Amino acid sequence: MATFKIPQSRFESRQEKLAEILEGLKLQNYIVISPMSIYYLTGFAMIPTERPFILVFKGSSINFFVPELEKQHVSEEVSTAEHIVSYFEYPDVIHPMIHFKKFIKDDLKISGKLGAEGGGARGMWGYQGPKFQEVLKMDVAVHPDLITDMRIIKDPDELACLSECARWGNLAHQLLQKYTAIGENEIDVSFRASHEASKKMREILGPEYYPVGYGGRPCGAGYRGQIGPYSAIPHAMTRNAVFQKGDTLVTGASANVAGYHSELERTMFLGEPSEKQQGYFAIMMKAQQAAFDTLEPNTPLSKVDQATRTVFKEAGVMHLVQHHTGHAIGLEGHERPFLDVGMNDMMKPGMVFTVEPGIYDRSIGGFRHSDTIVITDEGIEIITDEYPRDLESLIIDH
Amino acid sequence: MATFKIPQSRFESRQEKLAEILEGLKLQNYIVISPMSIYYLTGFAMIPTERPFILVFKGSSINFFVPELEKQHVSEEVSTAEHIVSYFEYPDVIHPMIHFKKFIKDDLKISGKLGAEGGGARGMWGYQGPKFQEVLKMDVAVHPDLITDMRIIKDPDELACLSECARWGNLAHQLLQKYTAIGENEIDVSFRASHEASKKMREILGPEYYPVGYGGRPCGAGYRGQIGPYSAIPHAMTRNAVFQKGDTLVTGASANVAGYHSELERTMFLGEPSEKQQGYFAIMMKAQQAAFDTLEPNTPLSKVDQATRTVFKEAGVMHLVQHHTGHAIGLEGHERPFLDVGMNDMMKPGMVFTVEPGIYDRSIGGFRHSDTIVITDEGIEIITDEYPRDLESLIIDH
Repeated sequence: MATFKIPQSRFESRQEKLAEILEGLKLQNYIVISPMSIYYLTGFAMIPTERPFILVFKGSSINFFVPELEKQHVSEEVSTAEHIVSYFEYPDVIHPMIHFKKFIKDDLKISGKLGAEGGGARGMWGYQGPKFQEVLKMDVAVHPDLITDMRIIKDPDELACLSECARWGNLAHQLLQKYTAIGENEIDVSFRASHEASKKMREILGPEYYPVGYGGRPCGAGYRGQIGPYSAIPHAMTRNAVFQKGDTLVTGASANVAGYHSELERTMFLGEPSEKQQGYFAIMMKAQQAAFDTLEPNTPLSKVDQATRTVFKEAGVMHLVQHHTGHAIGLEGHERPFLDVGMNDMMKPGMVFTVEPGIYDRSIGGFRHSDTIVITDEGIEIITDEYPRDLESLIIDH
Repeated sequence: MATFKIPQSRFESRQEKLAEILEGLKLQNYIVISPMSIYYLTGFAMIPTERPFILVFKGSSINFFVPELEKQHVSEEVSTAEHIVSYFEYPDVIHPMIHFKKFIKDDLKISGKLGAEGGGARGMWGYQGPKFQEVLKMDVAVHPDLITDMRIIKDPDELACLSECARWGNLAHQLLQKYTAIGENEIDVSFRASHEASKKMREILGPEYYPVGYGGRPCGAGYRGQIGPYSAIPHAMTRNAVFQKGDTLVTGASANVAGYHSELERTMFLGEPSEKQQGYFAIMMKAQQAAFDTLEPNTPLSKVDQATRTVFKEAGVMHLVQHHTGHAIGLEGHERPFLDVGMNDMMKPGMVFTVEPGIYDRSIGGFRHSDTIVITDEGIEIITDEYPRDLESLIIDH
């Protein structure tokens, strides 16, 4: 059966791990403010807003301080929570942080040293408020990366979800390629492919599946403007473009499985590519292969980026390179660490990376495939390997 | 002709306004780190990543410090920029903030006091880096809200874009209502309505239109799980739910016009509503009308929330209320200020709010319409007024 959920036991083992880490730091309590960290620890996903939503990890218990509109939600979804205390609203007559002080002192009876993921409640959408330290009159030691660091090595449940992601990103991309044609519109083709693939994904995974988080799309594929010469802008955005003969295309496809995301990108051509297009394509392919050949456990991350640079330098196109080879991926679209010359940490089994060296010629286009790989005990597994990478398979001639 | 762009002259007048504000603070230079602020000042939209992307406002000149992969992009789109300097990559062998120091000292020759929107580059997706003050060895005065505050009163171009938004949110919602039926799936109905409405929007606005930002959807509508008793969870999320007879439904529809968003939400019923459903609906309608009647310039924001609370208290349902009456809206989904009992600022012409008092009974459902209104010189304009609010129009009987 397809895996699309993280089991409750896994959330519990993550909580145990965090408790160990805190013990190592001589901390008993830790304030968690990032929605991603809260999801990672408990499986509870929310719409992040200006309203402070805080998890306090005390010893090894889960305690929530939430706005009234999340109280019922979190109490139904996190049955293991010890305290769930709500304030009515932000900003309100009394600032939520005043209630938070009572939560810490009276409900949780915390008096010693406190660790925290950030200095204050996570601000967005117009939130304004004091630092924890000011409001609590307690020592608050900020350790922003404890949970982010835990997320670097993916566990078997995460890897299963990521593989399932790749499967549906693949389908969405197949449909994107199928529906892309001269005269069609990028937004339209993307909607069509994403809708059809999402429908299939829902049907196959069944009624228990749902896309986790705010967005609600099971899977999808698109171009975000990387069409023709605009594909040479690595972070182009949707331009409402119409496909033309000769266009170099750079795609993107992914899915949402328990909130995890894989990444699949392909360079494609509308019609037979020119010699120049073929030349760039071949160099990019060689660079990506060099990365695949270098990725392995107990090797510095920097070595992968050095390998692709060597290919680009030898081909005389280093001036067309605009970014490193890749980034970690999982719950977020980009995560630490990076496949970058500046990162000397070792690759370890369970790390997941995109591998996407690219070159960009503004007069012709961008040339970048992106595959998602897992570092294994022996080497790597390319989880997006099913989608062809060769030139012939990526020419659209309809 | 439909308006879907902010003209260049408007960006320039915003820059002049910021220069005046800085003068009032005796600041000549200001570091801008938020992608939303950069868009508001210049019209340049980007995909925010771990790579620092910084605008330095010097006197009244625009200067960019960007990763290599955004250099071409920003230079094509912001022709008025004085300096555009790139660093190659994050993390790289040399941290971008070291290059930033050179940018400030050597390129911009700034030596005096510096203002900044935040203490350091905006961190996300694994970014780690020092504070500006540490790296620059200069006094950096953090003023986080200068641009956010400018955004509170919308200018005529913003209001025109928001009206255009409402028009397309309306269409997406019409299609959502049309395709919603017993046995259909929420994800499928949302995709279908959003695709069809986006296609129409593209066709009518023409090839010059594009959705600004990362997402690429012209307009859309959906449920995000607010179906049947789950509509009583105000921030429910997509559950892959199938519509059933008797369901109370809470919707959401919006569009992207120059990056601006309106909000339209309706409470609907699948089949003839019960007496209880009708009763809650009537109370909610009365509360929304009380808000409309209270919204006017030079009146405290709190008065609107007090008015809806009075209706709820008199109806004996205050225990079913979970949030305040509404929030400002524009470039972001929620913005300051809020229609909240705790906010005593005055409403002023050009402010834009959602008006969405709601009540929630977990055994039956949620009852909330949301309309977007503009405070005018005389009172208000309800820009989502075209979509019916009455019970009869919101019963789905197919």
